[in-house]
Amino acid sequence: MSRELCPPRLSINQGTIKYADLATALRVTAEAGIEAIGPWREPVAEVGLDTAAKMIADSGLRVSTYCRSFTAGERAAVLDDNRRAIEETAVLAAAGAAGSTPVLVLVAGGLPEGSRDIAGARERVRDGVGALAEDARAAGVTLAIEPLHPMFASDRCVVTTLAEALDIASDFDPHVVGVTVDTFHIWWDPQVLDSIARAGRERRIATYQVCDWRTPLPADVLLSRHYPGEGVIDFASLTRAVMDTGYDRDIEVEIFNQDVWDDAPANVVSRTVESFRKTVSPHLTTPVDSVG
Amino acid sequence: MSRELCPPRLSINQGTIKYADLATALRVTAEAGIEAIGPWREPVAEVGLDTAAKMIADSGLRVSTYCRSFTAGERAAVLDDNRRAIEETAVLAAAGAAGSTPVLVLVAGGLPEGSRDIAGARERVRDGVGALAEDARAAGVTLAIEPLHPMFASDRCVVTTLAEALDIASDFDPHVVGVTVDTFHIWWDPQVLDSIARAGRERRIATYQVCDWRTPLPADVLLSRHYPGEGVIDFASLTRAVMDTGYDRDIEVEIFNQDVWDDAPANVVSRTVESFRKTVSPHLTTPVDSVG
Repeated sequence: MSRELCPPRLSINQGTIKYADLATALRVTAEAGIEAIGPWREPVAEVGLDTAAKMIADSGLRVSTYCRSFTAGERAAVLDDNRRAIEETAVLAAAGAAGSTPVLVLVAGGLPEGSRDIAGARERVRDGVGALAEDARAAGVTLAIEPLHPMFASDRCVVTTLAEALDIASDFDPHVVGVTVDTFHIWWDPQVLDSIARAGRERRIATYQVCDWRTPLPADVLLSRHYPGEGVIDFASLTRAVMDTGYDRDIEVEIFNQDVWDDAPANVVSRTVESFRKTVSPHLTTPVDSVG
Repeated sequence: MSRELCPPRLSINQGTIKYADLATALRVTAEAGIEAIGPWREPVAEVGLDTAAKMIADSGLRVSTYCRSFTAGERAAVLDDNRRAIEETAVLAAAGAAGSTPVLVLVAGGLPEGSRDIAGARERVRDGVGALAEDARAAGVTLAIEPLHPMFASDRCVVTTLAEALDIASDFDPHVVGVTVDTFHIWWDPQVLDSIARAGRERRIATYQVCDWRTPLPADVLLSRHYPGEGVIDFASLTRAVMDTGYDRDIEVEIFNQDVWDDAPANVVSRTVESFRKTVSPHLTTPVDSVG
């Protein structure tokens, strides 16, 4: 696919091509004319941080986010690991092309084993973010709290709405703690447009991510994400709401789906380009490529 | 099980013993010493309304709710069928023992085929409720709008939070339009306790229903409901919040779960009694049996 055919501001989240190693992910993304990528920690760890940074620099791609940090687990170990993730985010974003954004996506985690105290778990998220904020500030990294769909509230993420993520973020500097706006997780929320507008006013939208929701859900609901346009999400209203806040960064497509993962990475990237062009691009303003 | 061992205010929602016909459902419920039941339309239709009313009267049980009405579908047919459901609710609640409550649970329905307009679908719910309100008032029946978990937003119910259900109900008299508070659907909501308090202030809690949430979810997430105490829901805080509003009606246990459905109805009822006694009864005030 020629470079001029690729829609501006599209970024491939590496979770969409989960089985591709970093070299493959960078290659198929660049070959499709896409200008940005959101790498994951595991494929970076496979080659080592220094090598990963060099590979990203050589690719010419922007880095849009790094996935991911978390707050659940044994506190000291969680903080140590997240501090490494913050440092990795800074290194990789610095290695990326101009317009890269040092954003570390934060998925809080679910309830501790045997716990029924979701309010307490939410307080521990706030505490965990607080414990990492100074490290993030020092590294110039934004922690992007991601609300996950409420069907993951018990086992993956006790933060379930954008409003809740903003409430946690409100204790901190917007450059240090923001939010992830992912259509899949929040499309159903009757307050979603108001919450996006609030996130904009509070300068919290660190990253906008897109994929679609469709039923029936697969047996593993984690893998129920689809190419934009294949489900019921109204990308027009959500994307315009994000654009109306002045959001001017890359937009990631992040799909967890066994069929997508089983497809060849180059095919997946090609289909992602087509779906993004049809469903997201028509609603964009202020393209990032003007800063590239 | 002797009658004095059964916890007050427990009602068996017939969906919990889905494969039991009405006669069996009434018999196993009464034999367990339980004083109330929430019948479903299908088993009532099997015997006919008049016979069902006589069977319920003979059982000595209270009727706590009738399940269910809806707003999705071809408008004239939906209204006709719901008017029949309203009439059935009035007849069955009148046939039930003293303390019966003429409550028709309303599950709105999902998005129309091919639609991405959830805001529009929500407006049609308001419209549908409005079209039925006069019939409900005339019959002395309360329509209890039930918010369903957001994982059902596209295919079963576009009303996803208690606040949203209350916003729709607010156009109507609380005797005519209330809400269903079901722990399974709303436990994750960061605003749940505030919304329950609001529902109480606005005199909207037509029925309180309980079952538990546990992961991993089964392949069909509709069937992911469990006996209270087997999952992560904090029945103490939710039940106390409902009691603090002055709620004095029966409390239904409604479980959709293939393993529960495959069990013998008498066993299911016995396990329901035990789970209710342990997880819900300790948090109750103002027992209904004082009016029975």
